[in-house]
Amino acid sequence: MTANAPGPGTGTDDGLPPLVDHHCHGIIRHQPDPGTFAAYLTESDRPPAAGTTFFDTQTGFAVRRWCPPLLDLPAHCPPDAYLARRRDLGPDETRRRLLGATGIGAYLLDTGLPGDLTGPAETAEAGGGTGYEVIRLETLAERVAAGSHDAEDFTDTLDHAVRNAAHTAVAFKTVAAYRHGLALDPQPPTSEAVHTAARDWLAAGPPRLTDPVLLRHLIWLAVATGRPLQLHTGFGDPDLRLDHADPTLLTGLARATADTGTDLVLLHCYPYHRQAAYLAAVFPHIYADVGLTLTHTGPRATAVLAEFLELAPFGKLLFSTDAYGLPELYTVGSALFRTALTSVLGDWTASGAWSAEDAGRVGAMIAAENARRVYQLPAR
Amino acid sequence: MTANAPGPGTGTDDGLPPLVDHHCHGIIRHQPDPGTFAAYLTESDRPPAAGTTFFDTQTGFAVRRWCPPLLDLPAHCPPDAYLARRRDLGPDETRRRLLGATGIGAYLLDTGLPGDLTGPAETAEAGGGTGYEVIRLETLAERVAAGSHDAEDFTDTLDHAVRNAAHTAVAFKTVAAYRHGLALDPQPPTSEAVHTAARDWLAAGPPRLTDPVLLRHLIWLAVATGRPLQLHTGFGDPDLRLDHADPTLLTGLARATADTGTDLVLLHCYPYHRQAAYLAAVFPHIYADVGLTLTHTGPRATAVLAEFLELAPFGKLLFSTDAYGLPELYTVGSALFRTALTSVLGDWTASGAWSAEDAGRVGAMIAAENARRVYQLPAR
Amino acid sequence: MTANAPGPGTGTDDGLPPLVDHHCHGIIRHQPDPGTFAAYLTESDRPPAAGTTFFDTQTGFAVRRWCPPLLDLPAHCPPDAYLARRRDLGPDETRRRLLGATGIGAYLLDTGLPGDLTGPAETAEAGGGTGYEVIRLETLAERVAAGSHDAEDFTDTLDHAVRNAAHTAVAFKTVAAYRHGLALDPQPPTSEAVHTAARDWLAAGPPRLTDPVLLRHLIWLAVATGRPLQLHTGFGDPDLRLDHADPTLLTGLARATADTGTDLVLLHCYPYHRQAAYLAAVFPHIYADVGLTLTHTGPRATAVLAEFLELAPFGKLLFSTDAYGLPELYTVGSALFRTALTSVLGDWTASGAWSAEDAGRVGAMIAAENARRVYQLPAR
Repeated sequence: MTANAPGPGTGTDDGLPPLVDHHCHGIIRHQPDPGTFAAYLTESDRPPAAGTTFFDTQTGFAVRRWCPPLLDLPAHCPPDAYLARRRDLGPDETRRRLLGATGIGAYLLDTGLPGDLTGPAETAEAGGGTGYEVIRLETLAERVAAGSHDAEDFTDTLDHAVRNAAHTAVAFKTVAAYRHGLALDPQPPTSEAVHTAARDWLAAGPPRLTDPVLLRHLIWLAVATGRPLQLHTGFGDPDLRLDHADPTLLTGLARATADTGTDLVLLHCYPYHRQAAYLAAVFPHIYADVGLTLTHTGPRATAVLAEFLELAPFGKLLFSTDAYGLPELYTVGSALFRTALTSVLGDWTASGAWSAEDAGRVGAMIAAENARRVYQLPAR
Repeated sequence: MTANAPGPGTGTDDGLPPLVDHHCHGIIRHQPDPGTFAAYLTESDRPPAAGTTFFDTQTGFAVRRWCPPLLDLPAHCPPDAYLARRRDLGPDETRRRLLGATGIGAYLLDTGLPGDLTGPAETAEAGGGTGYEVIRLETLAERVAAGSHDAEDFTDTLDHAVRNAAHTAVAFKTVAAYRHGLALDPQPPTSEAVHTAARDWLAAGPPRLTDPVLLRHLIWLAVATGRPLQLHTGFGDPDLRLDHADPTLLTGLARATADTGTDLVLLHCYPYHRQAAYLAAVFPHIYADVGLTLTHTGPRATAVLAEFLELAPFGKLLFSTDAYGLPELYTVGSALFRTALTSVLGDWTASGAWSAEDAGRVGAMIAAENARRVYQLPAR
Repeated sequence: MTANAPGPGTGTDDGLPPLVDHHCHGIIRHQPDPGTFAAYLTESDRPPAAGTTFFDTQTGFAVRRWCPPLLDLPAHCPPDAYLARRRDLGPDETRRRLLGATGIGAYLLDTGLPGDLTGPAETAEAGGGTGYEVIRLETLAERVAAGSHDAEDFTDTLDHAVRNAAHTAVAFKTVAAYRHGLALDPQPPTSEAVHTAARDWLAAGPPRLTDPVLLRHLIWLAVATGRPLQLHTGFGDPDLRLDHADPTLLTGLARATADTGTDLVLLHCYPYHRQAAYLAAVFPHIYADVGLTLTHTGPRATAVLAEFLELAPFGKLLFSTDAYGLPELYTVGSALFRTALTSVLGDWTASGAWSAEDAGRVGAMIAAENARRVYQLPAR
């Protein structure tokens, strides 16, 4: 762990162990056109405002800082030059170079997003690591619904599907924050309520799952397996209403699940990350993730990580990139995490607030060890 | 754009273009007595607590830092000495000196506040810039109501008044946050609902407009004109309940207006500025303003601006002073903005996170260009 | 006031006057076993998560930074070595050494917590200061209820007890945030409502007081005495739902009490401390406290204090440790406050934003003078 400012390009000589990216997504296999590429830099689902570009964001600037040197271009080169070089190299070589520089040793990949995306093993292989699967509950339920002929069939099949998934996946994930908001009744629904909700939902289409009874049912099915449950909280695309994704809304669920033996992992959390850190401090089974937040805040990742580290116990904080679609987001997410962690812990060591030994130990915990313990991954 | 610490007094040699102050107010024409002067330093509407003074705030200290040198006194001189010198110079010379040092080239002035205040042209002239008018919707409605004999007359006249205002004003502004809070039904009210609300309001006095139906009606009248609509969010005087001014409460309105072609500009936003930046990131027609927040936070303006710049796309952030009553607030607002912007972008350039070229470009966007584009001001 | 980085161990040569710790608790008289010691480092009421320890938190690291040198050990020594040395010295000598290094001159001690704890005079004596009592309203009410035979007896006795307490105590405190949340009707309840609520509560046990009518009644009984009322806001143990402890929920009470002449002091406030600072800025009778927050955030105390100092008028901010159980928490709370205050004000002076004279003056206000004025303590 050194406090030196990193040069351009990522570096993995900072003394951290191979990272465990405990929440990420597949990479598009084809070459994106410029508009598609830019759209992956934002959480917006609309075109940029007239006169603006998604490259003029912290994520865009971070991509231009960290990625061009890995493709033999100078840092901060214009987007067009970068995209041209990327096209020349092709998607496979680009992915290999960009993931190879991350120092990520384990990829816990949420497979619930649609599109022609790399899977856990394929993604990890490009980066020289190991892949694991995270099952998105709502996608699983929608898939089961598509093949169900009635509510009873649906609930039975779903029950089996969740229990089966727990044998191969390392964790579950819920996007209830997007589908309803986190202000859900914390108790498990009765089987009658589930049956009624399933019947109504199936009769309606079934479209995208937004029914709060079924969302709660999924959460409790996952909790019953004992696998850690990842919950999206905080910012994301505008499907979500931000204040309805405040993790404090999960306090009731935290209390209701405190004695189940299952861990809950709050993802992203921003701008309510201090609230998430508080929950991780007072509930033994609650963890928090710095994920998406660091990727989207560029040089502010240092300040934001420091805010997480106010109340969050050091054994309760996990690293992820939340990368999706572009291998660049793995590069940027890991580089910003490394830079931020090295800077924060280095400053605290330099001031005498922390010992160098503690800083090294905590760095390794957040980078990898906490996740290895929570998800019961093999020691490296 | 340089990263040098500014000396005492404001300086406009930082490479920024003439600033566009997209939200400000008139200046009192007379010489304020000491109590009146101090009252403009705070958002409180009551006397200071026993044993305290409004000068012992970040705003008070910032005035004492930036303004005395412009009146030939040392920075940080005692309030009494400053006020005595100010009295000697008289209001016109004081205004000329204080505004002349701001480097503001365009003043977009909300004319909806009562009192003997300078108007857009008069204010701009003192500062060597150009004045534009922003129409405060609630003031306009209250003025129309005072001359209306019934609800039909009121709604017809109001409709014409808003459309006429759009021909001369560059924007509208709503203070619904003060009058009701931002948790308003996002859809436009029906004309029956408007008629009933107008009838009840007129029958009651009409006092200060607080009816949520009429507040929504005003918002939608303004949106229909295509002129940008400024919305007060976040802190302000204690009329307002702070948590009811959280900009995330506007998510429904953001969705409802997404396809109208009209831009919404969230003013001030603090301490919910990260939430405002998120909205600006995911909705193309949402902009955010650093305004009042920088003026009131003194040397913390740098940190607060950096927080805005986490999620806000660089093309979506606007400068304002929100100055009101005292020319000092123009001086302080522009000086703190310059200092903060120079410091933040300078640090990011020095660390290699940003290129110097990008920093210069983004500085100009936030200082002036974004506002020129949004309000369709002539290029300078 | 100097900007030098403090060395290991606390130091009181920073130019601040003897501190007034306006909110703290008693110290356990016996020698804690290691598990008990660790439990005082956290707000959690459960054992640590498997694989983690409460020492791996900012509070744990801060204890290991500041306390070992006072017991003749190197800073950052392992917890076991520290606890062994502590056992050798015994509780009295440990307390004497740890409190003696704080530079606290006045202890305003909330006596409402159960257990074998030192009282105000005994605590202050160990630290060479003066002790004062703060009465916790809910504890007082529960004690009165235990000896009451009916609702009328209860309300009469309670009324006398509160008025009597005001003769000897310097302040009252409410933990309504824990018992119900802060979203209470701001008006005093009618005597009929109080009578009914008291009757129901007494009939039920009476267990822990959580009835909102009785909580409001206690608040208004305290307000009527004219003594400052301390209100827990923000984080604490998981009894509390964090978002229900947001101090903006007290806006109605702030308005309702604005003309009573009684001051309200918002305790802790985190992560809503910017909201608390806003309330302190706009209501003359509202004060805010940096207390628990600095103790729990370690080297981040500097950043958090700076956030408080954005909107809070300098005459409205108070120091406390909120120490409870362990003398170490007095050491850490005062050391972090000194470090943070010296660092923040030193930086602002160095940049020219503040004058050195103002920085020294404001430091003394926050450290002691504001509290001496609010609680009418004798000048030192």
